[in-house]
Amino acid sequence: MNDHHVLSLTSTATDGAARTGRVVTARGSFATPCFMPVGTRASVRTLSAADLEALGAEIILGNTYHLMLRPGAELIAEFGGIGGFSDWHGHVLTDSGGFQIFSLEPKVTDEGARFRSTYDGSYHHLSPEGSVEVQQLLGSDIMMVLDVCPPLPSPLGVIRGAVDRSAMWATRAKAANAAARAAGSTQAQFGIVQGGIDVALRAESAERTVAIDFDGYGIGGLSVGETREEMLPALAATTAVLPADQPRYLMGVGDPRSLVEAVALGVDMFDCVLPTRLARHGTILTSQGRLNLRNARFARDPEPLEPGCACPTCARWSRAYLRHLLSVGEPTAARLTTIHNVHWLLGLMAQARSAIAAGTFDRLRAEVAEHWA
Amino acid sequence: MNDHHVLSLTSTATDGAARTGRVVTARGSFATPCFMPVGTRASVRTLSAADLEALGAEIILGNTYHLMLRPGAELIAEFGGIGGFSDWHGHVLTDSGGFQIFSLEPKVTDEGARFRSTYDGSYHHLSPEGSVEVQQLLGSDIMMVLDVCPPLPSPLGVIRGAVDRSAMWATRAKAANAAARAAGSTQAQFGIVQGGIDVALRAESAERTVAIDFDGYGIGGLSVGETREEMLPALAATTAVLPADQPRYLMGVGDPRSLVEAVALGVDMFDCVLPTRLARHGTILTSQGRLNLRNARFARDPEPLEPGCACPTCARWSRAYLRHLLSVGEPTAARLTTIHNVHWLLGLMAQARSAIAAGTFDRLRAEVAEHWA
Repeated sequence: MNDHHVLSLTSTATDGAARTGRVVTARGSFATPCFMPVGTRASVRTLSAADLEALGAEIILGNTYHLMLRPGAELIAEFGGIGGFSDWHGHVLTDSGGFQIFSLEPKVTDEGARFRSTYDGSYHHLSPEGSVEVQQLLGSDIMMVLDVCPPLPSPLGVIRGAVDRSAMWATRAKAANAAARAAGSTQAQFGIVQGGIDVALRAESAERTVAIDFDGYGIGGLSVGETREEMLPALAATTAVLPADQPRYLMGVGDPRSLVEAVALGVDMFDCVLPTRLARHGTILTSQGRLNLRNARFARDPEPLEPGCACPTCARWSRAYLRHLLSVGEPTAARLTTIHNVHWLLGLMAQARSAIAAGTFDRLRAEVAEHWA
Repeated sequence: MNDHHVLSLTSTATDGAARTGRVVTARGSFATPCFMPVGTRASVRTLSAADLEALGAEIILGNTYHLMLRPGAELIAEFGGIGGFSDWHGHVLTDSGGFQIFSLEPKVTDEGARFRSTYDGSYHHLSPEGSVEVQQLLGSDIMMVLDVCPPLPSPLGVIRGAVDRSAMWATRAKAANAAARAAGSTQAQFGIVQGGIDVALRAESAERTVAIDFDGYGIGGLSVGETREEMLPALAATTAVLPADQPRYLMGVGDPRSLVEAVALGVDMFDCVLPTRLARHGTILTSQGRLNLRNARFARDPEPLEPGCACPTCARWSRAYLRHLLSVGEPTAARLTTIHNVHWLLGLMAQARSAIAAGTFDRLRAEVAEHWA
């Protein structure tokens, strides 16, 4: 690791552009490629820290937007950050708050974004510097810079403007964290590449972000309306520029097919609400594709959600029982299906790591492509 | 145990009228006095069988009304009953379905009750014989007879009518289970005493129910509108008649003060939605009384729900964290508070058993009276 970086990526094997290894931090390390379950409000919906430990999660995501409003970053800081507050001893990555705020139609200037709280309608302001400050209080292991993330499709001028403003904000965010770093902070900071699906803008944004020099790099502004066929060239144009010895994080992407395609392009980290949100609606992730547990054909089915699955849910309960709980609105349904889906997606990433180490990643990629659109 | 009974109460100590021991069944045994968490729809709301095991629950309650409608008793029978369906290996007691049905303003005749499903408005009929048949399919360890449970206050004529019809129905329920028992069924059957708060009617109902001869006796029609001061004499008039060597179950009562007062009168078993329902609303049971977790004074409180509590929730999480989860509607809040409340109420019953064995039950009763209205 460069002596000014507080984390490093130790690659143990590559298979084409795909790579596996560990990200080493001040807290410890986590295996890559990895999927980070989303703990929006300092809790992965329906789960506790004990559940996440049992599932073998090594890193989760926390949402700056939600936590700065409820219960407030200062309160969380009093408890030693998100980890202390929720008694989670693994890694935590926090987003900048920007993604949620941009969905609220904020007033955006070079200074930052002014927005209304979805909790009580009150007005708030978030700047690159403010986002750093909040994330320092949240005490994450990895913070993200505030960026501008336009939906797709957007006019090229909008994408270009997002690249420019994101670069300016990234520079300010790094400066805002400089004093803490000089004082010994081990909280890592990732820049974020924008550029929509324009490969030239992607390359330019990646170059400009790398020039600022962060501990790792987020790839933002994808999976926001474009097709996978449009996304992957933009992703490839980005990973081609990003330093090989630093982690790359594709933000907000979690469908199995996109995960393996992105890993094939050299991405190391992912987050998405997909496995947890689908679970609450009764959509089960399996190696054979999605299973809709609400389907009447599962009403008397004694099989587990996925035969052979080693998760705590599949070890004990049938599709029939879980479908019943789901049908009558018992909250236990959402928890048990969430446990399965998170286990399954963490397992897919473990399979990816093994396949890369064995040089058989293309085979896993083909298997996933067979079952996932 | 009488050779025609399939369970027995082994009393190991008494303290006044209070007694402690074990109910021995074909499945095993459970300690008394005991509290049975309510698993309405084959799940104690927010918990799984694994959670109940961790909490040390020995017996839970299932609701015939809900389960006969969703997913249906035949389906549950295919899975080996409520226990097999939910993978719960402890004891299960099922109610008769009557309590829920009588809240639906059914058309009641000597034959039974005709009612509309709260799920889809369809019409159904429940008779004493039908309730036995459904509970045989549900495979509980203890079934309850269908009774008539009037709200309080009700005219004495209504209470008298309920006593008479309940006795007639109890006779028919026993007859309906006779063939199964002759064929070797080890499913116990409890009669139910009615009589409102009229001590003479209570004694009469108890005598008539005992004369029919059941494996144990439910005490119904209490905690349905009357004060505790009105309830206790009616309860005393009942327990005075019930056989000392058979279990007594006070139905639907779960507030700590009533529990200890009823134990003092010789009651062995209880069920109530109170600990689980209160938990979901943020009301926490503690040895110092109720704690309203929604109160703003807990927003920054690093203490567990109850200092010194050995439950999995208090072992890890602060009032501040749990209050936050509750405030923002995270489902994990309800689960973690439910775990505490069930642990606490099971613990109160364990304290009662120890106090009876030590001859100090009056001291426990006084302590509970000090903190619970």
